Amino acid sequence: MRSLPQPKATDLDLVAVLHALGEPVRLELVRWMAAEGEVPCSPEHLDVPRSTLSNHWRVLREAGLTWTRAEGKARYMTLRREDLEARFPGVLASVLAAAISSGTTGTDETGR
Amino acid sequence: MRSLPQPKATDLDLVAVLHALGEPVRLELVRWMAAEGEVPCSPEHLDVPRSTLSNHWRVLREAGLTWTRAEGKARYMTLRREDLEARFPGVLASVLAAAISSGTTGTDETGR
Repeated sequence: MRSLPQPKATDLDLVAVLHALGEPVRLELVRWMAAEGEVPCSPEHLDVPRSTLSNHWRVLREAGLTWTRAEGKARYMTLRREDLEARFPGVLASVLAAAISSGTTGTDETGR
Repeated sequence: MRSLPQPKATDLDLVAVLHALGEPVRLELVRWMAAEGEVPCSPEHLDVPRSTLSNHWRVLREAGLTWTRAEGKARYMTLRREDLEARFPGVLASVLAAAISSGTTGTDETGR
């Protein structure tokens, strides 16, 4: 079920994508999805208030970075890698590689 | 002369770079520098108030996207392509290619 607004692949906007990626918690959520595939909305490794997380997920979804699957009240997110690669070749891949190699993901795996 | 704060190549931060790129006027300034080399602070093709532009240039400089050269009261900016490529391989190049091919640069060449 997909009831939430999310742009079509052809409507992805570069500025919106870069804006969505240019925030530490959102960049970490993107890195996490890239590593894990489908993820729940509350990452255990991030100590971020639920309302803040919810806002970050909304920004990611509206920018077209994620697909959101609703299952009852739960939400599951996946990264739209193929759509992003098709529209902006190399952008997401290079950002992910840089995020991993520079460790610039806003928080680390220990829950800080 | 370089009297303005600008990070060393090794101190470039990915989130700060993406945040700087994720705004339409700033992305257009970056595209413009990529096309022209050294540029003055007031692009004739952009109808943006001087104070707004000045703020955008500051964000770009502080994120490490530009070198700023002062000549009297004038400022001249260049894109730090090599530093960015060395620190975050492929990020700037893919963003520039996407900006050019998608035409997502906030304003167009006619001055809108």
